[in-house]
Amino acid sequence: MDAALYLIPVPLGDSAVDKVLPDYNLRVLREIKFFIVENIRSARRFLKKCDKNIGIDGIEFFTLDEHTRREDISGYLNPLLAGNAMGVISEAGCPAVADPGADIVAMAQSRGLKVVPLVGPSSILLSLMASGFNGQSFAFHGYLPVDSAKRVKKFHEMERDIASGQTQIFIETPYRNNRMITDICNTVRKSLRLCVACNLTCDDESVVTLTVDEWTRRKFDYNKRPAIFLLYY
Amino acid sequence: MDAALYLIPVPLGDSAVDKVLPDYNLRVLREIKFFIVENIRSARRFLKKCDKNIGIDGIEFFTLDEHTRREDISGYLNPLLAGNAMGVISEAGCPAVADPGADIVAMAQSRGLKVVPLVGPSSILLSLMASGFNGQSFAFHGYLPVDSAKRVKKFHEMERDIASGQTQIFIETPYRNNRMITDICNTVRKSLRLCVACNLTCDDESVVTLTVDEWTRRKFDYNKRPAIFLLYY
Repeated sequence: MDAALYLIPVPLGDSAVDKVLPDYNLRVLREIKFFIVENIRSARRFLKKCDKNIGIDGIEFFTLDEHTRREDISGYLNPLLAGNAMGVISEAGCPAVADPGADIVAMAQSRGLKVVPLVGPSSILLSLMASGFNGQSFAFHGYLPVDSAKRVKKFHEMERDIASGQTQIFIETPYRNNRMITDICNTVRKSLRLCVACNLTCDDESVVTLTVDEWTRRKFDYNKRPAIFLLYY
Repeated sequence: MDAALYLIPVPLGDSAVDKVLPDYNLRVLREIKFFIVENIRSARRFLKKCDKNIGIDGIEFFTLDEHTRREDISGYLNPLLAGNAMGVISEAGCPAVADPGADIVAMAQSRGLKVVPLVGPSSILLSLMASGFNGQSFAFHGYLPVDSAKRVKKFHEMERDIASGQTQIFIETPYRNNRMITDICNTVRKSLRLCVACNLTCDDESVVTLTVDEWTRRKFDYNKRPAIFLLYY
């Protein structure tokens, strides 16, 4: 196997490994002895879930989370520089998309090292596919501002970009999901469509697209369930 | 299996099925007798590649491409309305992202039908992961304008959005890839970084991130090879 930095996606929620990851990822995993991870305990759990016979004790982990300082990671790629394959594992979904892994990828790229992204579940892509919205032009904003005035301003910017044909995608802390939908209903034009995708790839997943007007008149409860939001005309 | 509209990704290029699709997708495929596809011949080839014993003759195909009129597709979901699982297959990558499948998904959503997106390769997500750029905020623009003045204007808009932290992603017709890189080098600030991801998931894949200044001074040839472009600071 090539000496490269392999970016290894992790299932969302409790979905089975073979539901969301290609076999190839498992073959790659088994060969790697050096992993850069957000959380060692959950990374071990993921590796065991992929292959219960995997030899965890022979594996070296490097922690990269929001508390890791940029200068601490300068040595993380030494095993790769010495010719070993390395893996990056995030907490859920695809590494380096909306998580700290991007810093280590940028460092590998700046040193001319090979980076290999593996296929896996992304709530952004899965929700976009299932929304029925424009996939030829879209923007992902991460979390929206919490401050009311700033949030309203952001919604108005999104309405402007929707008018030019761009699907708008964003997330919220799960315990504020219901509040997010209410905020949208109170702010944007009633004729826009809102898609809420919840628990993607899990047994109780749902992807519901309705007009904002329909959401206003509908009962819903997404409290504390992982969800992603999409707006379009 | 649930009566739902399953969105079934297809490998990019000639990559092996088990390199880019979870086993679950193949289990779903084998149960479906009604497919909405961009091209029947390549859809058959894909199904045979997934399972050479699949009974193609018992499968009904509906064509949805850029020539299909909106009014022609109104009956396409009848098998689903009658309680059968249906599948959507695109030419490459994820259905309904940058392909005509979004229309049929929108129709299913507007009728309150269940839509289930399956995991698979997306050049947008894979290139974003491997670029080292910001994955918390990004925009995908599809194809840029061909007209020089409009293209320059678009690059300047992208520079403005990069300044606010948003990664910019776009594609080009493969025989114009080299021209695209030259256009970028001639237009945007030399300190920005350009990532070119080519033949993703295939044996000769490459993902290279360099400053625009470095691209200007480098030899490259991406002519007629599928590529995707990302810009960031």
